[in-house]
Amino acid sequence: MGTKYKIVVIGAGFGGLTAVQGLKRADAEITLIDKRNHHLFQPLLYQVATAGLSPSDIAWPIRTILAKQDNVRVILGDVADVDVASKKVMTDIGDFHYDHLIIATGARHSYFGKDHWERSAPGLKRIIDATEIRKRILIAFERAETACDEAETRRQLTFFVIGGGPTGVEVAGAIAELANHALKKEFRSIDPGSARVVLAHGTDRLLPAFPEDLSAYAKEALEKLGVEVILNQLVAVDGDRGISMDGEDTPAATVIWAAGVQVPDVAHWLNIETDPSGRVPVGDDLSVEGAPDVYVIGDAALVSWKDNSVPGIAPAAKQAGSHVAKTLLAKLGSGRDPGAFKYSHKGNLATIGRNSAVCDFGKLKFKGRFAWWLWGVAHIYFLIGVRAPFIVATRWFWDYVTYSKGSRLITGVLPLFEESEKTKD
Amino acid sequence: MGTKYKIVVIGAGFGGLTAVQGLKRADAEITLIDKRNHHLFQPLLYQVATAGLSPSDIAWPIRTILAKQDNVRVILGDVADVDVASKKVMTDIGDFHYDHLIIATGARHSYFGKDHWERSAPGLKRIIDATEIRKRILIAFERAETACDEAETRRQLTFFVIGGGPTGVEVAGAIAELANHALKKEFRSIDPGSARVVLAHGTDRLLPAFPEDLSAYAKEALEKLGVEVILNQLVAVDGDRGISMDGEDTPAATVIWAAGVQVPDVAHWLNIETDPSGRVPVGDDLSVEGAPDVYVIGDAALVSWKDNSVPGIAPAAKQAGSHVAKTLLAKLGSGRDPGAFKYSHKGNLATIGRNSAVCDFGKLKFKGRFAWWLWGVAHIYFLIGVRAPFIVATRWFWDYVTYSKGSRLITGVLPLFEESEKTKD
Repeated sequence: MGTKYKIVVIGAGFGGLTAVQGLKRADAEITLIDKRNHHLFQPLLYQVATAGLSPSDIAWPIRTILAKQDNVRVILGDVADVDVASKKVMTDIGDFHYDHLIIATGARHSYFGKDHWERSAPGLKRIIDATEIRKRILIAFERAETACDEAETRRQLTFFVIGGGPTGVEVAGAIAELANHALKKEFRSIDPGSARVVLAHGTDRLLPAFPEDLSAYAKEALEKLGVEVILNQLVAVDGDRGISMDGEDTPAATVIWAAGVQVPDVAHWLNIETDPSGRVPVGDDLSVEGAPDVYVIGDAALVSWKDNSVPGIAPAAKQAGSHVAKTLLAKLGSGRDPGAFKYSHKGNLATIGRNSAVCDFGKLKFKGRFAWWLWGVAHIYFLIGVRAPFIVATRWFWDYVTYSKGSRLITGVLPLFEESEKTKD
Repeated sequence: MGTKYKIVVIGAGFGGLTAVQGLKRADAEITLIDKRNHHLFQPLLYQVATAGLSPSDIAWPIRTILAKQDNVRVILGDVADVDVASKKVMTDIGDFHYDHLIIATGARHSYFGKDHWERSAPGLKRIIDATEIRKRILIAFERAETACDEAETRRQLTFFVIGGGPTGVEVAGAIAELANHALKKEFRSIDPGSARVVLAHGTDRLLPAFPEDLSAYAKEALEKLGVEVILNQLVAVDGDRGISMDGEDTPAATVIWAAGVQVPDVAHWLNIETDPSGRVPVGDDLSVEGAPDVYVIGDAALVSWKDNSVPGIAPAAKQAGSHVAKTLLAKLGSGRDPGAFKYSHKGNLATIGRNSAVCDFGKLKFKGRFAWWLWGVAHIYFLIGVRAPFIVATRWFWDYVTYSKGSRLITGVLPLFEESEKTKD
């Protein structure tokens, strides 16, 4: 074993996992390091945040996925640094030598320098983000039910989503549906349907990656669900008091951040220049300039495409992972070198609510009910291979028929009960 | 509304919920107060702790269960005290007046005065207990995989369960199965099947509430699964170092407490004497001496039965809830007074592992495979009414066929990553 080629992969998201799986036949010693024990199907994370799915519906142990691939060792560890000169990854549980390194850390949400906003306006990237947001949404309704005055009720029933990309659109739509359907008739002092859901976006249309007519449709569909869409609007998060727009305050107990992404750590590890959002520029073969044994893929990489860059979506990360795997296989003597990476764009999908979605496949565009079913089928299909998707399908079907939401748990430590949960109870 | 009869119920477990549902036709204003937003199907909590089920499989919003019962208001609140003289329940979100009060808080685990043991040896009563224990179990295997020396590997792979009642037996059996089946082949440096699972019990047989032959069977069945059963053994939890028995240390990274229960708060609220475990002695009609308008039911009540007391199990709590509902209905002029509470014991069930359980129905006793299927069918049956149980049934069936465990997520803040999760990531 000791003399085998060593490949280290950081991150078991779509990119890292695909790279590892592509190296199945490699005569190498692969180490996959992740901070968490699970691979997350991020496109459905907003459904956990809005109580439609459970965490374990969309996350699976990395070990289980790779149980049968004998050339991989999975490590639960936190990468502290990379030493490019001596080819070493340093983690909290020890150092790992590599001959080739694949960095696939993904991105986090970005507050454009206002990191202190995070406490009041959490973003949505990890399971614990989703359960935190779910907790906040559900507690807001609870607090509204027992609020003593009108203003406090309004504040609790105001949900403010910042950022009109796919995540913002999906979250805003799902909160509106939760309020209008699943929570209906469950409260005595408030009408959940009177909740105010606001989606604020900085430019002149939602879903900027989609064609203009689909953006317009998304806005209309959200408004039909009762969401207030505000365009061309920059907002400031004002502590626990809510949102400030053009100097005017909107009290909102629940604020959700979906406005930008940033790649943490990688620039610092490699000690190189990145673009403003922390993405690492890579060459044709996805390797880093000056460190040809280091590849960066997925959201962490800056790869030019058309007059822009490859988008930070799951299919792009998978293509890059697969490409690097082929390159390394060629280096190890099995298979041909795939040459330069060419991103092939399949399309964009975003869902707005029940029976309402947008799909853009270039020439073909869909919206409405058919797009929604297409979205559902596509996601069930993508789940295949990581887990038997029929449990998710069953749950969705059930929720679709009954208008219910299956996972409305407030767990963890409630802010209001922090002390009692810890000491008394 | 203001002049209506006011009934306040504290706790939405089996007892409180049944009482409220029994008061469906009552011309009264019912307020149900719970610290959490969900009713928990506690008999299956050990399956969440051992990664077989997700939290949302066994917990449902109280509001959803009671959505159609118009005479109930559900309050998410933490009771601070009860003023019996002025008939008032004080909570963190305000006071609630009552004409009749039903206390159904349930019990917590008891450390027999050694409350500082809880940090090292958590018990299993709430969802967050279960996810904490799940996290510890899964992380222990992760740490064993990357441990640097033999002793540390052994420590990580030692799971110590304290207390041989149904919970202890179920947890120990489930950990052994997790190690032997679901985790098999997923690690490279360790053999999960080599994990040492110890179940220590203070008296001379497991499951003291069951007949002796079933206790003996349970011990045998656990040993067949590879669990070490130690009887007549008192243990001390020794900080993070593990377990001390007769002065000798057993290093164990994961210690689980299933050794005793205690009722918190109620004695203090009512300012009365209780039995050593905090249970409130009640009269024939389940009311409190000196406070005839206050009823205590479920695990919080001490009700004599045969030469002992009514056991702290779900069916007993439900019977008591139903009884008090009938008593109150009679007071409100609908229905006959049910007279004195008579507990009817249906039986005891405990599961040990796949195809292995014990059922005691008095004259009829079962063990082994048939008992296990009986246990499964009974639990699926009991789930009916609180939630469509077919999702749980589907998941179980899937796990049964594949030997897998569907919910192996490490979520929340890992102890090892505490800082980075909070600040960096």
